[in-house]
Amino acid sequence: MAVHTVASSTSSTVDLGPAAALSCRECGHRVPLGPVFACEECFGPLEVAYDFSAYDTDTLRKRIEAGPASIWRYAPLLPVPEDVADKPNLNPGWTRLVKADRLAAELGVTGGLYVKDDSGNPTHSFKDRVVAQALEAARAFGFTTLSCSSTGNLAGAVGAAAARAGLRSCVFIPHDLEQGKVVMAAVYGGDLVGIEGTYDDVNRFCSELIGDPAGEGWGFVNVNLRPYYAEGSKTLAYEICEQLGWRLPDQIVVPIASGSQLTKVDKGLRELIELGLVEDKPYKIFGAQAAGCSPVSTAFKAGHDVVRPQKPDTIAKSLAIGNPADGPYVLDIARRTGGAVEDVTDEQIVDAIKLLARTEGVFAETAGGVTVGVTRKLIENGQLDPSKTTVVLNTGDGLKTLDAVAGTGLTATIRPTLDSFREAGLA
Amino acid sequence: MAVHTVASSTSSTVDLGPAAALSCRECGHRVPLGPVFACEECFGPLEVAYDFSAYDTDTLRKRIEAGPASIWRYAPLLPVPEDVADKPNLNPGWTRLVKADRLAAELGVTGGLYVKDDSGNPTHSFKDRVVAQALEAARAFGFTTLSCSSTGNLAGAVGAAAARAGLRSCVFIPHDLEQGKVVMAAVYGGDLVGIEGTYDDVNRFCSELIGDPAGEGWGFVNVNLRPYYAEGSKTLAYEICEQLGWRLPDQIVVPIASGSQLTKVDKGLRELIELGLVEDKPYKIFGAQAAGCSPVSTAFKAGHDVVRPQKPDTIAKSLAIGNPADGPYVLDIARRTGGAVEDVTDEQIVDAIKLLARTEGVFAETAGGVTVGVTRKLIENGQLDPSKTTVVLNTGDGLKTLDAVAGTGLTATIRPTLDSFREAGLA
Ligand SMILES: [Zn+2]
Ligand SMILES: [Zn+2]
Repeated sequence: MAVHTVASSTSSTVDLGPAAALSCRECGHRVPLGPVFACEECFGPLEVAYDFSAYDTDTLRKRIEAGPASIWRYAPLLPVPEDVADKPNLNPGWTRLVKADRLAAELGVTGGLYVKDDSGNPTHSFKDRVVAQALEAARAFGFTTLSCSSTGNLAGAVGAAAARAGLRSCVFIPHDLEQGKVVMAAVYGGDLVGIEGTYDDVNRFCSELIGDPAGEGWGFVNVNLRPYYAEGSKTLAYEICEQLGWRLPDQIVVPIASGSQLTKVDKGLRELIELGLVEDKPYKIFGAQAAGCSPVSTAFKAGHDVVRPQKPDTIAKSLAIGNPADGPYVLDIARRTGGAVEDVTDEQIVDAIKLLARTEGVFAETAGGVTVGVTRKLIENGQLDPSKTTVVLNTGDGLKTLDAVAGTGLTATIRPTLDSFREAGLA
Repeated sequence: MAVHTVASSTSSTVDLGPAAALSCRECGHRVPLGPVFACEECFGPLEVAYDFSAYDTDTLRKRIEAGPASIWRYAPLLPVPEDVADKPNLNPGWTRLVKADRLAAELGVTGGLYVKDDSGNPTHSFKDRVVAQALEAARAFGFTTLSCSSTGNLAGAVGAAAARAGLRSCVFIPHDLEQGKVVMAAVYGGDLVGIEGTYDDVNRFCSELIGDPAGEGWGFVNVNLRPYYAEGSKTLAYEICEQLGWRLPDQIVVPIASGSQLTKVDKGLRELIELGLVEDKPYKIFGAQAAGCSPVSTAFKAGHDVVRPQKPDTIAKSLAIGNPADGPYVLDIARRTGGAVEDVTDEQIVDAIKLLARTEGVFAETAGGVTVGVTRKLIENGQLDPSKTTVVLNTGDGLKTLDAVAGTGLTATIRPTLDSFREAGLA
């Protein structure tokens, strides 16, 4: 992919709050804020660098606590203008942190178990958090079309956010996607384009479009706006700590697709420590994959630093990235914090979805089955300490992956009489 | 239906916060708090009566504002114990009040248009609000099974709430319900019983079960716990006013199924006035029905006081109650406040779902299409004043009624090349 700069958008005209520049994760090279995503020196990924130097801890904490019940309470820590909450956007976040005592009892966790349930977001996945950042970047850079390639959650999140903001959206999907997923993405009225080919073909096409005049004025949320987009996942870390009473969890279990979310959760936790909003103490981050797409887990267990791509074959479609861009960073973080990366089979994923639903009333997407299933496995193999405070992420909604639990059904069928009821043994 | 009293549960042993007694809506006869729903004097519906006499307005307002981001911030105004937020429940509510400027522009509303979006609740419908009240009543009365008859949203809400609370659930549905709806209800692991018969047969069976020893210890959320259950809808009114800055809206558009929600929204608004939490000024309440199930709208337009039952035939299944119990009360309220009751066709419902999605990024259930469609119609026929502050309820989630917009699809299908993209006219 080529590296692009947009002459009309430089940091001198861009107000993205505390965001000061983009900085290369590999070599530290800094460039002005703009719709670029790869370092011109080393092709490493660019990240948002902030200037938090003016913040006083107590003032910042009070400002956050007095803020809106959305991710915008953390606007001082995000690449967004100060008045972001007043602009038309979906106001995602501030989702429930569910104290999961019944799940804890089943898993043998005694130190406190919590499920961060992101199915409460406007389009019912954590993608609303990241797309909301990309939307602000798009507005700052003067883009008029919001775009992405997607096979699911992201399509709806982009379509909805663009609709609310009054931007055009154009989302690219494989042309043979299931009808239900097409409807969920199409209902927001943007352009939804089916590509004759695989998801890889869709991605390749999008990269070409960014480099072409036809793609001028287009913000691809997870390509040329990726540095901003990715920052949205920090808000999961912020919310968890604030909801725990400004306390770090001891252990946190995060699903791995590209690996970006896990690296940003870690970044968010470190920022809170540096800003003095939480006590500086150790925490462990665990990564969760499906066995049918486990390149990072495989590398972790083999002690490798590099991640060998896999061809995904799992029901956890939202995690099915065979060549995860941030895989090496995930390995670093899991090892540095004393965590681990583990994977579970499709059968274990389904069992975990049902376990979470019947103990806590939370109906998770397959990705939530992956994190709960991995948590159980990590306890069984001794890598996760059940006596410590543990947070498990559920990043999506079971309504979007109904097929995974399609076997679930009626307990009994009876005639509408008390005799028939008694015969069925239900009394 | 017979009227039951449970000897073991009297108000002397029951802590449901400010709830003081049950009072007959028709004759005012009072009985102690218990799992009863019909007046022993006149068979009128029983309602919760409160003792709010100890509240000071400023103290109450501050207590609410300092409360949790859920309906439990209003615990002092609900039939629940003071420590309700510490008990395992789904913590519904405090959903987004979306300032809908783009929808307002399409509808010609200049006075401020808001959508109260209850799809953000844990099981994605307003039913979580009412079931949460029924759950507390069930706990107070020592019930160990939570039950209901349902064809959709309520089944999931009851299953999830019971799972989280560690109660048994047993939900009755018609045996031939669509597989997707069965899965959404079954995943929480409670008993889900298919009844060979119509929804009316299911309801009749449940009434028999309540009167039988086999139903002992069972709380039917919308039958013997109905007085408590129904109070949950007051929280919609509370939240709207607080989110408007402790201000009454001028106009509010509420869907009508049984009519209970509309009557409780009115009750909630009147309580806020009486408690001094909002200024005492007029407001208008409008009821919204589907043309295919419009008994209340038909009665309103004909100037009748009684509601003649209809046989429902509409895509708005969650509103398809042909003989709405609270229909006469709805007529009273619409007339008393200067509102109206209107209905829209299935085609208008689908158009309204799409309109809301493409203007505000909110994907509503068919019931949301009904309220938005009715709002448009009421503006066109001059009954709703577009220069006044207006709130429209969306009580459910589009993911649960995907079939309604199944016609929505791809804008174009192309090959993965820039030439094919340009040929499609998408640039
Ligand atoms: Zn570099
Ligand atoms: Zn009476």
